[in-house]
Amino acid sequence: MATKTQKKNAFYAQSGGVTAVINASACGVIQTARAHRDRIGKVYAGRNGIIGALTEDLIDTSRESAATIAALRSTPSGAFGSCRYKLKSLETHRREYERLIEVFRAHDIGYFFYNGGGDSADTCYKVSQLSEAMGYPIQAIHVPKTVDNDLPITDCCPGFGSVAKYVAVSALEASFDVRSMAKTSTKVFVLEVMGRHAGWIAAAGGLIEDHGIPVVVLFPEIEFDPQKFLARVDRLVKEHGYVTVVVSEGCHYPDGHFLAEQGSQDAFGHAQLGGAAPVVANMIKDTLGHKFHWAVADYLQRAARHIASKTDVKHAWELGAAAVKLALQGHNAVMPTIDRLSDAPYRYRIGVAPLAKVANVEKFMPRSFIKRDGFGITDKCKAYLKPLIQGEDYPAYKGGMPVYATLKNLPVPRKLPAFELGK
Amino acid sequence: MATKTQKKNAFYAQSGGVTAVINASACGVIQTARAHRDRIGKVYAGRNGIIGALTEDLIDTSRESAATIAALRSTPSGAFGSCRYKLKSLETHRREYERLIEVFRAHDIGYFFYNGGGDSADTCYKVSQLSEAMGYPIQAIHVPKTVDNDLPITDCCPGFGSVAKYVAVSALEASFDVRSMAKTSTKVFVLEVMGRHAGWIAAAGGLIEDHGIPVVVLFPEIEFDPQKFLARVDRLVKEHGYVTVVVSEGCHYPDGHFLAEQGSQDAFGHAQLGGAAPVVANMIKDTLGHKFHWAVADYLQRAARHIASKTDVKHAWELGAAAVKLALQGHNAVMPTIDRLSDAPYRYRIGVAPLAKVANVEKFMPRSFIKRDGFGITDKCKAYLKPLIQGEDYPAYKGGMPVYATLKNLPVPRKLPAFELGK
Repeated sequence: MATKTQKKNAFYAQSGGVTAVINASACGVIQTARAHRDRIGKVYAGRNGIIGALTEDLIDTSRESAATIAALRSTPSGAFGSCRYKLKSLETHRREYERLIEVFRAHDIGYFFYNGGGDSADTCYKVSQLSEAMGYPIQAIHVPKTVDNDLPITDCCPGFGSVAKYVAVSALEASFDVRSMAKTSTKVFVLEVMGRHAGWIAAAGGLIEDHGIPVVVLFPEIEFDPQKFLARVDRLVKEHGYVTVVVSEGCHYPDGHFLAEQGSQDAFGHAQLGGAAPVVANMIKDTLGHKFHWAVADYLQRAARHIASKTDVKHAWELGAAAVKLALQGHNAVMPTIDRLSDAPYRYRIGVAPLAKVANVEKFMPRSFIKRDGFGITDKCKAYLKPLIQGEDYPAYKGGMPVYATLKNLPVPRKLPAFELGK
Repeated sequence: MATKTQKKNAFYAQSGGVTAVINASACGVIQTARAHRDRIGKVYAGRNGIIGALTEDLIDTSRESAATIAALRSTPSGAFGSCRYKLKSLETHRREYERLIEVFRAHDIGYFFYNGGGDSADTCYKVSQLSEAMGYPIQAIHVPKTVDNDLPITDCCPGFGSVAKYVAVSALEASFDVRSMAKTSTKVFVLEVMGRHAGWIAAAGGLIEDHGIPVVVLFPEIEFDPQKFLARVDRLVKEHGYVTVVVSEGCHYPDGHFLAEQGSQDAFGHAQLGGAAPVVANMIKDTLGHKFHWAVADYLQRAARHIASKTDVKHAWELGAAAVKLALQGHNAVMPTIDRLSDAPYRYRIGVAPLAKVANVEKFMPRSFIKRDGFGITDKCKAYLKPLIQGEDYPAYKGGMPVYATLKNLPVPRKLPAFELGK
């Protein structure tokens, strides 16, 4: 653990889909690093994530004022740019991993903080392994982030609590709307939310049941059965006069086909989804004849810093700060976690997980969180979700609009020859 | 003006699409009426709007506590239920108008407060005319409400400022998101907003230009020209790396066809729209090849009390209160209005407009509010919009969720034979 006693620079990058609070983690990393100037030199950020490291396009965060870094805590999106660029296997793409180490070595970087989901946990782990082998040891710490909430070991992932709050609040408001209109007009409101494989976000929509709203939730974990679904919608409309449906983008038929596929794929080979809501809404219209409205929240949900969960913002900052502290304690190839101690009152502590156990493991909704009929969430799930949406953490406003930070993002002078991506 | 000196009950109803602040107008009406118990007896509300009056399904608002009525100020949707039910012409449907007067007479109602848009202003006006003719004079006062902001004479309509704030804030947040992702992933974000004929809501999306975001706005007032539009998107992506498109649901081709029609119609004979965003997004993908995301805000936008404009909430309450005061002053067949005195600092006073000049007149975006190229808003438009989104007016929260009121809505005993609608 030689790095413990030498002063080294740090590298921080944001990976994959951004969230309302990933910048709060960046804030936690940078503020904590600045508080340990004796051990950590500068924090360099990757412009557009790991691509910035590969192309030696580094941002010097030391050029940003303390006030600007503090403002990151309430700014949604990825302030340094993120990317969807998965480093493939060490065997076939060793060149890219070696380039990372070269860049780190050239800029005297001893700490690698990677802020992302499952794919980036894997990259982070590989960097740590390879750097050892290459004789330039990097302490690689993964900072969890994903609205999908699908990382293992940690109780929850920063980004999820805020999207859950957005979905619960928005679904409640829209349900009040459809309840008002149902007598002569809209009887069914369908809200499509994110979640390709795991239904955590859709589950948050189920929280409105406790506010007296008849709601049907469609999870990716439950194979879609049109007949059962339509019967449920019909029953609820007959009982209550209206119904709200929250459908996960990853909801699919038993044969694996998504309710709506756009046919295109992202850089990770995942199908680009969207449009389950109109499919479900039209199915209801055609079969039951009810007038409908549908919404697709898409980026609005994960960017909605204006309605972020205070708990989530706090988690995000603390996990960023914890990553730096773990590095200073000599940890490597780990991820700080949220370890829940109790639901009510909500108590948790920051733990630590080895990346070997995090990388490429997806955490789905436990079956015990989904009602037996597959259309809603259980009390156990509600007890899990409720602490995560607790508290409001409003950004400052000026002229009616939130004040979000845009950084200078000044470059660090290059020292190495250019590098071509994707070879 | 005999009604000035007699104590009469009042009738209040919500009409058409509900908003984040229509209940704030209800709150203004009821609180002001309660402050004048010497002149106004009870306030009865129509259950599900004017249908409640026709079917004698009245709600006794006097059974609600002062705290509950106060809570209406921060509750979205229509607390008494609204409806899409247009009273047709006096010539062909005189029976319905006469029924209204009968119900008002039976319940000693001397004041008719109708909270809605252009169609309900027309109904309100006709009720006033017919009641005179039938020898049971009703003071009919229209309380403006519409997210579409398309009523004439008044500077703006309650409901619009909040949806404008929602759209501007959401578009800003999502634009930060796409800016983060643009290097390797999404380069175009398309947000579809409401507005069948008038582009006021889409215009609010144009405000994000002042926050450094490259944005294209598509208005119903401007015929859609795919070539010009795609060229603009291409240029902005080349310049900035990404672009946000805000498209009005009413955006249409020169031949009048909407970008997306669902084929169905509502009770007023208006086409039910939705789906312009995926059409626009796929057009960009197919032509320019950019990766996209799209969102359709639908009800979320007009129900979003959590991000309501403080100015809008204030307007809504004040216009409800003003309606009662106008009635007490002996006015009839009028609508209280917002009369703007200055943009910055924003100053206004409450004025009054005769319903004869309000009914069935739609106010479109002035051409001077739309940039010459048709793809954005002018400084003049920004100066108009900015005061309307000023200020935040957060609801109370409990357990992470907003506290919205659900009323008891107890019925007033019926006195008349049943009435069949739509004969």
